Amino acid sequence: MIDLRPILLVHGLLLSILALGMVIPGLVDLLHGNPDWLVFVTSSALTGFFGVSLFLATRGGQFRFSIRQAFLMTATIWVILPAFAALPFVLTDPGLSYTDAFFEAMSGITTTGSTVMTGLDLTPPGILLWRAILQWLGGIGIIIMALSVLPMLRVGGMQMFKVEAFETQEKVLPRAASLASALAVIYVVLTAAWTVMLYWADMSALDSVLHAMTTISTGGYSSKDASVGHFRSWAVDWIITAGMIVGAIPFLLYLQAVRGRPMALLRDTQVQWFLGTAVVGVAMVAWWLWQEGGMDALNALRYAAFNTVSVMTGTGYATADYWQWGGVVGGAPVAVLFCLMFVGGCAGSTSCGIKVFRFQILGAMAAIQLRRLLQPSGVFIPYYNKKPIQEGVAEAVMAFFFMYALSVAFLAMLLGMTGLDHVTAISGAATAISNVGPGLGDVIGPAGNFSTLPDTAKWLLSAGMLLGRLELFTVLVLLMPRFWRD
Amino acid sequence: MIDLRPILLVHGLLLSILALGMVIPGLVDLLHGNPDWLVFVTSSALTGFFGVSLFLATRGGQFRFSIRQAFLMTATIWVILPAFAALPFVLTDPGLSYTDAFFEAMSGITTTGSTVMTGLDLTPPGILLWRAILQWLGGIGIIIMALSVLPMLRVGGMQMFKVEAFETQEKVLPRAASLASALAVIYVVLTAAWTVMLYWADMSALDSVLHAMTTISTGGYSSKDASVGHFRSWAVDWIITAGMIVGAIPFLLYLQAVRGRPMALLRDTQVQWFLGTAVVGVAMVAWWLWQEGGMDALNALRYAAFNTVSVMTGTGYATADYWQWGGVVGGAPVAVLFCLMFVGGCAGSTSCGIKVFRFQILGAMAAIQLRRLLQPSGVFIPYYNKKPIQEGVAEAVMAFFFMYALSVAFLAMLLGMTGLDHVTAISGAATAISNVGPGLGDVIGPAGNFSTLPDTAKWLLSAGMLLGRLELFTVLVLLMPRFWRD
Ligand SMILES: [K+]
Ligand SMILES: [K+]
Repeated sequence: MIDLRPILLVHGLLLSILALGMVIPGLVDLLHGNPDWLVFVTSSALTGFFGVSLFLATRGGQFRFSIRQAFLMTATIWVILPAFAALPFVLTDPGLSYTDAFFEAMSGITTTGSTVMTGLDLTPPGILLWRAILQWLGGIGIIIMALSVLPMLRVGGMQMFKVEAFETQEKVLPRAASLASALAVIYVVLTAAWTVMLYWADMSALDSVLHAMTTISTGGYSSKDASVGHFRSWAVDWIITAGMIVGAIPFLLYLQAVRGRPMALLRDTQVQWFLGTAVVGVAMVAWWLWQEGGMDALNALRYAAFNTVSVMTGTGYATADYWQWGGVVGGAPVAVLFCLMFVGGCAGSTSCGIKVFRFQILGAMAAIQLRRLLQPSGVFIPYYNKKPIQEGVAEAVMAFFFMYALSVAFLAMLLGMTGLDHVTAISGAATAISNVGPGLGDVIGPAGNFSTLPDTAKWLLSAGMLLGRLELFTVLVLLMPRFWRD
Repeated sequence: MIDLRPILLVHGLLLSILALGMVIPGLVDLLHGNPDWLVFVTSSALTGFFGVSLFLATRGGQFRFSIRQAFLMTATIWVILPAFAALPFVLTDPGLSYTDAFFEAMSGITTTGSTVMTGLDLTPPGILLWRAILQWLGGIGIIIMALSVLPMLRVGGMQMFKVEAFETQEKVLPRAASLASALAVIYVVLTAAWTVMLYWADMSALDSVLHAMTTISTGGYSSKDASVGHFRSWAVDWIITAGMIVGAIPFLLYLQAVRGRPMALLRDTQVQWFLGTAVVGVAMVAWWLWQEGGMDALNALRYAAFNTVSVMTGTGYATADYWQWGGVVGGAPVAVLFCLMFVGGCAGSTSCGIKVFRFQILGAMAAIQLRRLLQPSGVFIPYYNKKPIQEGVAEAVMAFFFMYALSVAFLAMLLGMTGLDHVTAISGAATAISNVGPGLGDVIGPAGNFSTLPDTAKWLLSAGMLLGRLELFTVLVLLMPRFWRD
């Protein structure tokens, strides 16, 4: 039997933090004279009661995790949190069904950004802020998880990103806490910087905060039905484009830069490949919009940069219904965007997807295969970031890639079984597992919305977001009978 | 410098065989009083002249291949043969452009079955027979190649299917030749059996031969614009369904069965997984057609079985515009078919795609990853067909899977750049590399045709067919500068 106490302790702790987070939109609604403030107080009280009770009931045991406990804790926390985070969406008037509310909360906390809410332009500020806070908390949550739990669990090659401070489980807890705090400070500073910039670009104070939060977390929830396209502003578009890139780069490198090693950021090959891929993708899309789409060069570059970076980093904002570009200029930009959707950003950032380092490792392995064909007896060592790849990492990355494809295919089939058309089913599966946000086509495309989907599809998509956010294996391992055996 | 003489010798030999093959449709046209017989005589003379000249000019050297020569020979032969096989399509009246003719010949010889020809119902028998012969020769060609050259080249894990008779390069040439002949006999016998069955099912003699040839080779060229749907026959549908399955099973197992080891066929796990996947896929599609599509149970089974097996084995026949099923019963059948398109059949058969054994190995590797997550220090050995997987095979298979995905994505982008819409671009790339035949959507779907595509797209698709048929790496290795260095 797995000892659940340390797991429940963490649940209690994080639910208490969530309850505190609910106070903020409550205050904002109170300031705006909106009756929703009561919704947030109620939700906060309920969540806080549960959280504190759990914490009190389980404290005092030893705070040490076996591998099984760590898996179970990681997977369940991302289900429990949205389960409570959904409360304000249910209790507000007109409220969402619990299915819709859970979907919205899961989509928030996994930084996916698919939404079932319509009429955002008329939605009270509290709810809009709550959606942004969920993505913002989810963003910092995943950054810390990618440095602490995931490398320890060796999920999908993440052991490569093991940090000394987290390396042993007991002794360095103070150092781990200080590292996590330092990362959180950087996260806060970046969010504040983007808030100021957006405010400077003539956004309202609330919109600036909201969009800064969902930009740095590559979450993509906007306060406008037309997403960032609503603002029709050069400055806003470029500021957010830069912010999405910042959110998709490993945050540990920012910390190293601040601590006097700025070159670490520039010398990291994952960052180089990420930026290189983004530049090539933007250039291709911009070229088509300019040459074939009838845009002038600067507008082509602006729309291409914003929407390409948004899809690649998995942010999911839109300033154009980019899936329609195919009809105008041929399928190339759509094909580019669809492929980039799977690439995602860097490991250790807020963005999801397969991630750039995995493509680097897969590329290195494929190159070695080619060389081995010519020299069957040759010995070839694959490199990542100028160091030999540790044993077991390549296999883990390749298994991840395979399971990613399999998961998208399987989820697409299940979604199709709920009656969705094949474009919605396939792109819905891809966008959920890659935590991007919008899908393809008329229903869930950048101009569409997830509200019309059947409830079963919403639960399936929520499961897909969880699967993608937790790098697949953290969830899949729980499905093994072996996991539950003694 | 690579010594080209043994390569050109094989080219000469195979071109001479191709020239002989051209005589057959010539004879048929002569019997039917069709002036095209002259086209075939001319083409045969031209091809034969080239082939015999090459052969005579290069014979006498030693018939032994280095690895580089074997790669170059394998890749070039599949370009030279369609280059000449295209001649009858150009010379007939009204003839095709050379681009169209090369596309049709490449699609034939790689057993892809994508066609640019319209009005098949009115096309003279010689040309129809020539298309079928190309697929039939391509089918036996790939069976022998998968047992001889590919394992030696260790392409994508094919070294697992090394056969003793082909093992060393020199001594056993007579045994290799006898094995190849035995396989060819089985191929001929199966084709004859299906010809008889189709004739019994009221097809004309010519149509029976044609369809038997393109069924066993999982090629999919039909003599009718409406493909096999033209015949509106229960018997024809089921006979061909069975034939496509027969064509997608390793032919070496038939040989072993004939030689007194029938259980080898049933005990082969690749065959078991192939049949199991096909049964599940057919059952799913049939269930939807029955429950949601308003078909009675028997018709649902018939249409599901035929079209699902056709897509999965990469044959590409159609008895329905199955991509339209999505609009009627939801996206599930389309999603199932789209996924099965990548699966393909068994290694050592005539069908293409990623192939079942690779999914078995990828699955075994993923399962080991899951177990390793729980027991980081455990030692796990992956198995295939109840034997431990040889060193290097898993890496080769995983690299293959990655390069497959990358190739489809890359080709889709290039196709999009020629102005194709994204459904045509993405499904066109998938159908070409998987050698299936029809794509998705209105343009190149089962009810469509490749004739309207721009010329650049046709050349790109031809390259994709070649890449897929030669298991990617045989072609990719030629792109390495290292290959050409001394
Ligand atoms: K997102
Ligand atoms: K085919």
